[in-house]
Amino acid sequence: MLNIYMKEKRKVIDEVMEGYLNKLKYPSVIAEGMKYSLFNGGKRLRPMLLLMTLEALGVDEKKGYATATAIEMIHSYSLVHDDLPALDNDDYRRGKLTTHKKFGEAEAILIGDALLTHSFNVISAGNIDLGGEKVARLVALTSSYAGINGMIGGQMIDIESEGKKVELPTLQYIHTHKTGMMIKLPVEAACIIGEAPEETTTKLVEYSELIGLAFQIKDDILDIEGEFEKIGKPVGSDEELEKSTYPQIFGLEKTKEILSEKIEKAKSVAVEALGEEKAELFIGLADFIGNREN
Amino acid sequence: MLNIYMKEKRKVIDEVMEGYLNKLKYPSVIAEGMKYSLFNGGKRLRPMLLLMTLEALGVDEKKGYATATAIEMIHSYSLVHDDLPALDNDDYRRGKLTTHKKFGEAEAILIGDALLTHSFNVISAGNIDLGGEKVARLVALTSSYAGINGMIGGQMIDIESEGKKVELPTLQYIHTHKTGMMIKLPVEAACIIGEAPEETTTKLVEYSELIGLAFQIKDDILDIEGEFEKIGKPVGSDEELEKSTYPQIFGLEKTKEILSEKIEKAKSVAVEALGEEKAELFIGLADFIGNREN
Repeated sequence: MLNIYMKEKRKVIDEVMEGYLNKLKYPSVIAEGMKYSLFNGGKRLRPMLLLMTLEALGVDEKKGYATATAIEMIHSYSLVHDDLPALDNDDYRRGKLTTHKKFGEAEAILIGDALLTHSFNVISAGNIDLGGEKVARLVALTSSYAGINGMIGGQMIDIESEGKKVELPTLQYIHTHKTGMMIKLPVEAACIIGEAPEETTTKLVEYSELIGLAFQIKDDILDIEGEFEKIGKPVGSDEELEKSTYPQIFGLEKTKEILSEKIEKAKSVAVEALGEEKAELFIGLADFIGNREN
Repeated sequence: MLNIYMKEKRKVIDEVMEGYLNKLKYPSVIAEGMKYSLFNGGKRLRPMLLLMTLEALGVDEKKGYATATAIEMIHSYSLVHDDLPALDNDDYRRGKLTTHKKFGEAEAILIGDALLTHSFNVISAGNIDLGGEKVARLVALTSSYAGINGMIGGQMIDIESEGKKVELPTLQYIHTHKTGMMIKLPVEAACIIGEAPEETTTKLVEYSELIGLAFQIKDDILDIEGEFEKIGKPVGSDEELEKSTYPQIFGLEKTKEILSEKIEKAKSVAVEALGEEKAELFIGLADFIGNREN
């Protein structure tokens, strides 16, 4: 059920995103670099979460296309900048050359900047049908979750923590901010678009926080147990950079238990928010995150 | 007259911007880096243009504070990223260490990203009084002028053109996009905020295009004739990078003539738009740009 849905939605989202990017032509290195970075084999988890939430709320998913595109552009820019030599210095992502390896370092900085900037164009100019009030709220939410108080904050503390033994609260700050905010964002954005009741929004946001955390914990486990072919980057690269991880603090077995707890809790919150039937995809996605191999 | 106005507005704008930045605390290196980069001794030309235009339209300048702040944040992020080793590799700007020299390279990339992202928060969450429709239009305009079809486009072609002899159309593309769009932006944004008649908007936008071009031509002249103490960067640094400039194509004397023409045309367009009296500051600013020594 979830697999079919994911495959279908990935196709829809990719087509929508391509439509937006095909309008951009010049300078060609920026236009091509934006496309290369956005179409990097990603799972489209964030756009899918947005469409899933709209569907659960009984709202036409087309109303979410622009916002889903914008959020994926921001996710994509963050990967481009994270991979830069001054940051993680990664040559490969999902088995493909990183943007700066493919286009050059100056170019990758500007390609990332262009993706970030253009995301706000898509979320505003692309959402005229939603009306100005919703656009203003979506821009405020997105810029908050992606900025210093959100994703960038998490990324900064992650970098500062390299090579240090950090306490659990710091690790939790990194997880909730670096990855968590951008997983929460599509769910909360869908609740704005679909005018969800406050209680439903609260529950769905809790769900997104739980799977966001689970996603990050699973990443840490995969970095120890995964295979290069599947995760597309060298196994143990976190360890090499002496990054703080759950396994480092709790050990591998306890970490797996925590992962399990988060997944189960996420599933029950989804059912509380939407009822058994409408929660099906949310339950499937939580399991998918816990079981994924890349 | 202009000098007093500039000094007064610079103070107002700096206080407003400080208010926005003081709300940001953590991670401290990002919060401090944003402040360091934004308070770098800049002339606040773009915010001032916005306030000037509102005043000429008879609109309370307070309505422009958030948008002026956002535009200056974007200008500031673009300088932070332009100065990076992979781009212009500048150690100093206006006699102060550049952001990456002060905070480190990874940090400067993220500080720039944070300024750009937060600008959209200020322009949305900070403009609630304007209503959603205007916010949506301001976000669309800003993201367009700052992105691939605007400033970033100009920056990319500028980099591509280094060490090459470029034709005039390419140089004009670089000028109108790299610098021009962000000088046009505050004027056009003020026309949205102040609901200016279409004809006034057209004229004022033309004014802003002319002074934007003049600003860039003057920059090229200063790079040849200026003094380090005044311009705050090594004289001849464009030449060193073999950047294309007006003096390279037209020679220094002809370039000075072109500058003069643009300034005079800008002044007459301002009078057409606003009448002799209300155009006073616009005339003063055009002359200021033509005569500035840094």
